[in-house]
Amino acid sequence: MPNSEPPLLPGERIDRLGHRGLSIIQNPVKFKFTMDAFLLTAFVRPRPGDRLLDLGTGGGVLPLLLAEEAGPASIVGLEIQEELADMARRSVALNGLEARITIVPGDLRQPPALLAPNSFDYLIANPPYFPVQRGVLSENRALAQAKFELTCTLEDLLQAAVRLIKGNGRLALIYPSERLAELLVGLERVHLTPKRLCLIHSRAEAPSNLALIEARPGAKTGLAVLPPIVIYDQTGAYTESMNQIFLGKKI
Amino acid sequence: MPNSEPPLLPGERIDRLGHRGLSIIQNPVKFKFTMDAFLLTAFVRPRPGDRLLDLGTGGGVLPLLLAEEAGPASIVGLEIQEELADMARRSVALNGLEARITIVPGDLRQPPALLAPNSFDYLIANPPYFPVQRGVLSENRALAQAKFELTCTLEDLLQAAVRLIKGNGRLALIYPSERLAELLVGLERVHLTPKRLCLIHSRAEAPSNLALIEARPGAKTGLAVLPPIVIYDQTGAYTESMNQIFLGKKI
Repeated sequence: MPNSEPPLLPGERIDRLGHRGLSIIQNPVKFKFTMDAFLLTAFVRPRPGDRLLDLGTGGGVLPLLLAEEAGPASIVGLEIQEELADMARRSVALNGLEARITIVPGDLRQPPALLAPNSFDYLIANPPYFPVQRGVLSENRALAQAKFELTCTLEDLLQAAVRLIKGNGRLALIYPSERLAELLVGLERVHLTPKRLCLIHSRAEAPSNLALIEARPGAKTGLAVLPPIVIYDQTGAYTESMNQIFLGKKI
Repeated sequence: MPNSEPPLLPGERIDRLGHRGLSIIQNPVKFKFTMDAFLLTAFVRPRPGDRLLDLGTGGGVLPLLLAEEAGPASIVGLEIQEELADMARRSVALNGLEARITIVPGDLRQPPALLAPNSFDYLIANPPYFPVQRGVLSENRALAQAKFELTCTLEDLLQAAVRLIKGNGRLALIYPSERLAELLVGLERVHLTPKRLCLIHSRAEAPSNLALIEARPGAKTGLAVLPPIVIYDQTGAYTESMNQIFLGKKI
């Protein structure tokens, strides 16, 4: 339950998040959550007591969605952009989740001392999808950093992940399907073995746009490619699977 | 059209193949084609005049299925097992396709001189799926070689492929989904860029068992993950997509 209504900065608003009565502070010109956060939340299966770390938490949407699940004991959200970290921290307070979620400002390329090596059971990330050379960068620095590999390449992310993950931990990511090969090669390079893959298709007849992947350090090879998730039906409405995911169903 | 009925060896029989009136000689205890040949045939899109090479052709099922398509000018089937190569050669004659298909006995680890480096537009393969250490080997050597990496590891296959493929050529494979990561890492190692991927699910709700993949030497990264193919419907019958594939529809 909210303790008290926190002050909003100019341009911010409070949006409803998910089906459990969460609220989130957003600023449309800086950062808004997308459906991808729901897909990754549905894919992640924390065990009770797990310590989770969201690498690049933005406005804190993944910690908020995951904190309400029975599983994780505590969630840390690391965010390089000071103003997004601040917004995320106020959203955590707004939902009264300060005991479960800690927002830490910092750069995953040089993780703050607070984040001890090999101390997290589950790392999650919804990282920038596009190399810097691709497309025109947003004029808005905050949005651009979230979408393009300005401050976090795939290699940066994976290096941080192997440093912070426990020996028996897991890493779950959502990433563009067109970069799936790069992702699998990158995981191999840091000795994270992919164990689960789920492909997301906007429509049943369309190529996959996003991939959910889970990897474990030094695990035996053997990848489970789950049945795909289709987002929209023929009429453009959400599919039944997608509606179930919005209601908290696991993939 | 068959020229004359070739003599069958003990244990052999003539089976119908596909919807175009092809025949194939098979020996159930040595080698029988599977549905995988139809899936790979549907995935391969040769251009008119292409020179195709099937690496490990077994009884010659892929050359036979592909020869009847308008596209490829000529198809070579390489097979290490002399008796299978002989059976494939007799099947080619049985269908009167000697002008289009050449069966070559030989080991892809040391390709016969007949197969010149960088001379093929399209390489295809339905290689052994399982490492030797996995499972009990078939008592039957012929079947075991087709299923287990006794004479052809993934690495052997990819090395042969890069040696034989033209600079603007393509390689298409069918491979177990659980080894998808190994496959993509292997392709990267020999600088073959995966460009198309299609996942096969036995049933809509089951994990994928097979992956179809196409790669090109030194191509720009960017993978198209096509809509998946489901083989059986809820009642256990072939799906409409699968029936279309049996009738020659392309993936």
